[in-house]
Amino acid sequence: MTFPFEHLTTDGHARAGLLQTPHREVPTPVFMPVGTQATVKAVSPRDLHDLGATIILANTYHLYLRPGDERIARLGGLHRFMGWDGPILTDSGGYQVFSLATRRKIDADGVTFRSHIDGSEHRFTPEKAIAIQENLGADIITCLDECAPPLDYDYNVQALARTHAWAERCQAAKTRRDQALFGIVQGGIFPDLREQSTRFLTDLGFDGYAIGGLSVGETKEQMHAMLEVVDGVLPTHQPRYLMGVGTPEDLVECVARGVDMFDCVLPTRLARNGGALTRTPGLSPSQPSRLNLRNARFADDPDPIEPGCTCYTCTHFSRAYVRHLTTTNEILGHHLLTLHNLHLMLTMAHELREAILEGRFQAYREEFWQKRPVPMNSEQ
Amino acid sequence: MTFPFEHLTTDGHARAGLLQTPHREVPTPVFMPVGTQATVKAVSPRDLHDLGATIILANTYHLYLRPGDERIARLGGLHRFMGWDGPILTDSGGYQVFSLATRRKIDADGVTFRSHIDGSEHRFTPEKAIAIQENLGADIITCLDECAPPLDYDYNVQALARTHAWAERCQAAKTRRDQALFGIVQGGIFPDLREQSTRFLTDLGFDGYAIGGLSVGETKEQMHAMLEVVDGVLPTHQPRYLMGVGTPEDLVECVARGVDMFDCVLPTRLARNGGALTRTPGLSPSQPSRLNLRNARFADDPDPIEPGCTCYTCTHFSRAYVRHLTTTNEILGHHLLTLHNLHLMLTMAHELREAILEGRFQAYREEFWQKRPVPMNSEQ
Repeated sequence: MTFPFEHLTTDGHARAGLLQTPHREVPTPVFMPVGTQATVKAVSPRDLHDLGATIILANTYHLYLRPGDERIARLGGLHRFMGWDGPILTDSGGYQVFSLATRRKIDADGVTFRSHIDGSEHRFTPEKAIAIQENLGADIITCLDECAPPLDYDYNVQALARTHAWAERCQAAKTRRDQALFGIVQGGIFPDLREQSTRFLTDLGFDGYAIGGLSVGETKEQMHAMLEVVDGVLPTHQPRYLMGVGTPEDLVECVARGVDMFDCVLPTRLARNGGALTRTPGLSPSQPSRLNLRNARFADDPDPIEPGCTCYTCTHFSRAYVRHLTTTNEILGHHLLTLHNLHLMLTMAHELREAILEGRFQAYREEFWQKRPVPMNSEQ
Repeated sequence: MTFPFEHLTTDGHARAGLLQTPHREVPTPVFMPVGTQATVKAVSPRDLHDLGATIILANTYHLYLRPGDERIARLGGLHRFMGWDGPILTDSGGYQVFSLATRRKIDADGVTFRSHIDGSEHRFTPEKAIAIQENLGADIITCLDECAPPLDYDYNVQALARTHAWAERCQAAKTRRDQALFGIVQGGIFPDLREQSTRFLTDLGFDGYAIGGLSVGETKEQMHAMLEVVDGVLPTHQPRYLMGVGTPEDLVECVARGVDMFDCVLPTRLARNGGALTRTPGLSPSQPSRLNLRNARFADDPDPIEPGCTCYTCTHFSRAYVRHLTTTNEILGHHLLTLHNLHLMLTMAHELREAILEGRFQAYREEFWQKRPVPMNSEQ
């Protein structure tokens, strides 16, 4: 293991630890804001620092296309390029490439795809995915994997064979000793495949384990069942990262099932569409913890987005002002909502950690759900 | 005079003073960032504070339409609404309305216009312009004026008659005692009309004097000639505000002609188009003090936008990174360029003040122009 995962405390299946990286220690559970194109959209590195973000994610696919991983390497690597002195994790590009659907073709050796920007043809192999991520220079890099449709068993069997072969090749291709490499568990919604994948990867031995292919169409119950399978097989003393998840509700329920690390575009993307995450029940029963600031009912509302919230947005501005900014499409509206939403996710991850360290995770979890009008397992 | 303009120091025709307002003291010369829709685009109030901005401008026309001046009054006024605790100046809406061209109709009593947003019909009279600005609650408000095409003498004669009648009506309509009212000198590029306008308004007696209708198509020489006419007539001990101007070059040359206050969308608008203002000669002879960060030549450039600049952008990020952000249309690119451009304008205004207080304005002016490859009077 390149970077130790230390001081592990458990409370039921929930875990709190400290992940060491070359750029800073990461207390877990942790939420990683997504910096797709070498920027977490609508906020600056100093904003992220002020929000208490410790580690962020960047996308290999996007940075490979623009501005190019070799250019970033020439400019001193991704940390220096984007002015972020904390840890970074890069995905392998697999998820984005497989999302291109008709614009990509998979074979045993890798995947050929056309850029979403200009249609130019490119090819990712496991070796190429590692080479790009070594150019970018993130603290944690990930294996090229195939993110298959979660409900198709036969397809998942085939995809898993590729994902496993590629994991071996990624491990062999890695040359830098200052980067941790995470394997990615796949297997759709099928317990046998998830167990098989987890055993295969842990036998290979990685610095940590990502859990991919979830939150892509399956139910929450199915996702939770997969986490429970994986939790039972993964080694205790290494970090587990649930890719692309999730909501405040997901944080609580997936920490309860042994997850240490999360990333999701939800808080930042929702912000740019006028949406705020909240801790309190919202105004719409189907979205119990969100507010749509574009709604006319906020036009004269002098209250902050969430009374009691300590973020910059809630301590300085009213819902009426944020609504004005979002309806006039002002950049400051995107910025203020992004600050609020990231603050909530980062603060929740911190609170979950404190609860675990103090042995009161279950109480935190129960209190969290008591504030919500719908039972935990019917959340979408 | 509602708010005193104190501690006036002159150096040639250049002036340094302190403008008292209910919200803070404003050292002059001053550059006012433009907050069109109750936000200076792409920056937050704390950014403005960190940049050293003391007073900002907001647009009566835009705020009247969205979110509405009565709504802002209900929410506690513009300062509270936008979370800015420093002074604010509002324009009268005249410039925006007259810019609507075919969508407005002027008569002796006021102007009827159609909203650029939804085509709905509205009417501004002098009394209405004051009522809206009293609802907004800025520290400094301005008279409704007509901004005429600068080169049409006969039109300017007629427009000036309206502007003067409206100035009297604005003065009579004003009810709040905690707002200063500025008259607006018009008269196109015609010295006799400018002199007539200045005398008429100073006879009425305002808290300060705005100079309107410049930087709208005339040459720099014509603008400078008008400033010299107005400078010779305006009372010494009241502030003079040149509306909608200007560039770094304009700051130097208009301070040299007795101007105290400036506003311009240039630094913020340029930023959102990938442009940076600089102190050093640029790469294009026709734009001696600007860089276009979209230019491919910056793709691998590790230098800051302006070496030596102390702004957040230049102390943390390379031209290559800012170029990446602007070409991918990331919000952070707009933010970082806005910070840099506002920093330059605000810093220059501060330096001009220091130079005047120390009696070395002319030396500052000469040094400024020595760095530029084109003579001062052929600048556009």
